[in-house]
Amino acid sequence: MSAPTEHPTADAVVIGAGPVGLFQVFQLGLQGIRAHVVDALAHAGGQCAELYADKPIYDLPGVPRCTGRELVALLLRQTAPFAPRWQFGSLVQTLQPLPDGQFVLGCSDGAQLHARQVFIAAGLGAFVPKRLPVPGLERFEGHQVFYANAIPALAASAGLRVVVHGGEESAVAQAVALAEQRQSAGGGDGAGAPASVTLLHRRDVFQAPPEQLARLQQLRDAGLLQVVAGQITGFQTSGGLRSVERGDGQSVEQNSQVAEARLCALELLTPAGHTERLPLDQLQALLGISPRLGPIVDWGLALERKQLRVDPATMVTSVPGIYAVGDINSYPGKRKLLVCGFHEATLAAWAAAEARAGQPLPLQYTTTSPRLQERLGVRE
Amino acid sequence: MSAPTEHPTADAVVIGAGPVGLFQVFQLGLQGIRAHVVDALAHAGGQCAELYADKPIYDLPGVPRCTGRELVALLLRQTAPFAPRWQFGSLVQTLQPLPDGQFVLGCSDGAQLHARQVFIAAGLGAFVPKRLPVPGLERFEGHQVFYANAIPALAASAGLRVVVHGGEESAVAQAVALAEQRQSAGGGDGAGAPASVTLLHRRDVFQAPPEQLARLQQLRDAGLLQVVAGQITGFQTSGGLRSVERGDGQSVEQNSQVAEARLCALELLTPAGHTERLPLDQLQALLGISPRLGPIVDWGLALERKQLRVDPATMVTSVPGIYAVGDINSYPGKRKLLVCGFHEATLAAWAAAEARAGQPLPLQYTTTSPRLQERLGVRE
Repeated sequence: MSAPTEHPTADAVVIGAGPVGLFQVFQLGLQGIRAHVVDALAHAGGQCAELYADKPIYDLPGVPRCTGRELVALLLRQTAPFAPRWQFGSLVQTLQPLPDGQFVLGCSDGAQLHARQVFIAAGLGAFVPKRLPVPGLERFEGHQVFYANAIPALAASAGLRVVVHGGEESAVAQAVALAEQRQSAGGGDGAGAPASVTLLHRRDVFQAPPEQLARLQQLRDAGLLQVVAGQITGFQTSGGLRSVERGDGQSVEQNSQVAEARLCALELLTPAGHTERLPLDQLQALLGISPRLGPIVDWGLALERKQLRVDPATMVTSVPGIYAVGDINSYPGKRKLLVCGFHEATLAAWAAAEARAGQPLPLQYTTTSPRLQERLGVRE
Repeated sequence: MSAPTEHPTADAVVIGAGPVGLFQVFQLGLQGIRAHVVDALAHAGGQCAELYADKPIYDLPGVPRCTGRELVALLLRQTAPFAPRWQFGSLVQTLQPLPDGQFVLGCSDGAQLHARQVFIAAGLGAFVPKRLPVPGLERFEGHQVFYANAIPALAASAGLRVVVHGGEESAVAQAVALAEQRQSAGGGDGAGAPASVTLLHRRDVFQAPPEQLARLQQLRDAGLLQVVAGQITGFQTSGGLRSVERGDGQSVEQNSQVAEARLCALELLTPAGHTERLPLDQLQALLGISPRLGPIVDWGLALERKQLRVDPATMVTSVPGIYAVGDINSYPGKRKLLVCGFHEATLAAWAAAEARAGQPLPLQYTTTSPRLQERLGVRE
């Protein structure tokens, strides 16, 4: 991990760029508060992008029908006038109060954020890639083993024996893309292309659009890609020094810089019950992405059935200055619906602005307020 | 007033067809509850239609910009699958519990409604036309005096001396329309047209689009319409018998069916301070429409600064079975914003459905629930 990056103090940090996080940015913007947004995914949208990008939503007021993707695009348009700072592909791991009443947030990408107010809009938690349950494999992560949120560029597989692991569209698409590198490099032997591409899944059955499955078959027939059926049960390494157990029970690497052990093969259990060895240089595991509440439960905020308990009048958690909105919060009558999350983000922004002002603020409407219209950039 | 009309028992009565009332209909529909909607206006929309039909709204989630009129059209589209029953131009005057736990509502049009549950989405109150503060004039209402919500058809002014009262667009438009009847009837003497058209306002200055003011001037120049400046201070009657004071202080009409007194002239105070007499057969007062809380405060529901106090978890008022949503309710943290009203309508529908079921109901999403999609009519 790189050395911590110090960010300038953010007015407000919004954790989560799902629909409610985006509307939080918008409502903060109306209050004149600029937001810094952190999300574990590489893009905005959260559940809307991951779980129902192409599925219809029918119960938003004034929007008879839209897909998750369309909703995200509309919300991004609404946040645009407020120029939020985006920090994607990063998980907020720690959140601690400072003596001056502000907060410091530690992120998985090494960034440290200071914030006056924090808005947790983390939904069901951070969307993180599913990992292989093979002990010891984590030591190769980032070098030889890659998961869904950190797949390397195609060029990074040049000359390597690549195994793509997974049975759904993203795995098939990645295997096809790598094999096409081999094809355009002239039969697979040209420079810049992988030395081999293997698509590994527990069965030789894939869930993907028909045209993609047809393309997969073409590349198999052309010898540019092979499919292997099996489950990963272990792995083999070559070279370097193995880790040794110290007296205190902690393992250490000896001379790891000079000759680190390399992952050289996977051990598989085939559908027929045999054990096989699959040699490789690089493993790309595309096993899907799922939400996990993660470190939030350790931040010392009052919980109620794994949700953050909030005051429904302000959406403030048990710690003043930290608000929670959307599916992650809990209060009497709570329903996990978008329209409720949008209301919560609105109340949170008002409460935050009033906490800053130290007094109640008069209600203003975007329809009539010159001040709000100026902030929105729609003032004529 | 006509004899009370008995309506069949409604599942749910929604009072107010403004945006929050419309979304209440939608959310009830998702819960399988059909709504009967009563509104004092002749059409849906409430504030959105009356106060900002052409003004932009910028703070609806997923709707970067829409006018009040556009929002109403979108919400009406959303309610369509649930086929609500509409009762427009009617004010709910009384709301009383029945021994069986249901409610009976008495309306200004004489209708009596029975309902299992009542949802008050009355906003700032019913939009009612501003009335002339001239004592005694009310006895001619509906016969010779008409206000903005009940202007008669043009043909009903045939042969009459009509006075249109007001200084804004609606008054100018009505005077122009009546004068055009005279024009097309051939100089004003043909059958079916008013005998005369007078536009009365306290000053000879009108607020209307330029093209309408130009048309007004044309018709004045052609002698088809006259403008009179003055304030109404009283009126004169002819024929019939005047009301007489009884010994107990109550006035009674004597023989009113046979020879009712007719309004025959208005007494005016001109800008120069003179008193003038303006003969007429019909007065159309278009003085604007404004919201009034009206009879709601007398229904025995707990109030908090002229708002209905609700439990924020369910939006139920102090009387079980009666819910309040939108600008008319009050709870800790309440903000009078559309997005909050939509949330409230959602919680109220859930609470109402659970009260009927006698148990908590599982959350369903329109994106994935076949049941909801069937109700919405979008199931393939």
